[in-house]
Amino acid sequence: MSGRDAGARPAQDTARPARRRGRPASADRAEAGKAARDRILASARAEFAERGYDKASIRSIARGAEVDPALVHHYFGTKEQVFEAAAEVSFAPAAEGLGRLAPHGPDGLGEELVRFFLGVWENPASRAPLLAVVRSALSNETAARIFRRMVTRQLMARVARRLDAPDRELRVELAAAQMVGVAIMRYVLGIEPLASADPEDLVARLSPAVQHHLAGPAGPAGEQPRGG
Amino acid sequence: MSGRDAGARPAQDTARPARRRGRPASADRAEAGKAARDRILASARAEFAERGYDKASIRSIARGAEVDPALVHHYFGTKEQVFEAAAEVSFAPAAEGLGRLAPHGPDGLGEELVRFFLGVWENPASRAPLLAVVRSALSNETAARIFRRMVTRQLMARVARRLDAPDRELRVELAAAQMVGVAIMRYVLGIEPLASADPEDLVARLSPAVQHHLAGPAGPAGEQPRGG
Repeated sequence: MSGRDAGARPAQDTARPARRRGRPASADRAEAGKAARDRILASARAEFAERGYDKASIRSIARGAEVDPALVHHYFGTKEQVFEAAAEVSFAPAAEGLGRLAPHGPDGLGEELVRFFLGVWENPASRAPLLAVVRSALSNETAARIFRRMVTRQLMARVARRLDAPDRELRVELAAAQMVGVAIMRYVLGIEPLASADPEDLVARLSPAVQHHLAGPAGPAGEQPRGG
Repeated sequence: MSGRDAGARPAQDTARPARRRGRPASADRAEAGKAARDRILASARAEFAERGYDKASIRSIARGAEVDPALVHHYFGTKEQVFEAAAEVSFAPAAEGLGRLAPHGPDGLGEELVRFFLGVWENPASRAPLLAVVRSALSNETAARIFRRMVTRQLMARVARRLDAPDRELRVELAAAQMVGVAIMRYVLGIEPLASADPEDLVARLSPAVQHHLAGPAGPAGEQPRGG
């Protein structure tokens, strides 16, 4: 409790927190440092969400966290690195959720993924931060690069691991494209009737398409893909 | 030729073009007006593409067209209305193309649409302006509203007309979501291997998923959708 109170004070204070009896000074400093770091991260996520990558500034992130801008640089480095750390927090629930999916093969994977994806996006607590990262990625090349790396390594790679096909990365990306498109049209653009469709109806309609990408033939029934 | 030359001059000149023998003054004025309008539209499309909806300004659009800002307001109204007119030009090839698709039922419609969609996006001349509109729509609520109306009325309604099902709007939107997701991941974010995949390979992989949305069962094989 007292540690959290100390952490809520400006950085000038937290850099030298009041020493508590029976505790080494280094432990207090480490705790205060972690509290300041957490405040900066929370402020960064709010700043990127509100203003997007382009308009966000280290100065404003520092102000929101009640620390000196130098401390933001000290903990995170450049604006790009602050964005990456903030995006990682926003992606964490999705990445952890994908890690928890049943470790079986592709059977039923389509429905499992659609259900998981809609679950993350239907929940405003996980939707808002993801939306913020997506918006930044679509309007700024630096943010796009970080987003691309994060989606590829932390989300899609976890799904690809469950497939055996040599073209598994492409399969997962086409499945992801279906869900990304739904997220954009339903949650970002609010296109009706998709925006108001019942989630269970969407699970039923989307699962076969996603399953097709993950485990179906690579071309139309009875045909080989012409290009590859 | 001389009409186009006159049109390339600043608006102050084009407002009173040199009268040509045997032609009523009103015809010259109408031609000069159309030339100025076209220049404004071209400048607006470049401005929105380069700076996005938020940062674009009527002043800068007027400067690009070598006219007075008042003339931009005269022809188009507000910045929102300029954006709408510019977006309409960018959407025209897609809307016209969809209008030209064979007027048969849903058989083979999936492949036809995927092929058409990739054709529009693979061509840099039609891709760049669409990308600009999409970027503006994803970062600004006013642009999103215009984009939503345009996509719904000019693109998706043309496809829905070819289906007979009561849920045809939702079907077309889920099919569109698949292609929107591919456009975002392939052309905006450049996620590999999707970004470099052969277009014919993509046609073969995407068509069954799109066809499923347009004409397949509304739930997984043998099941009714649970939600509706």
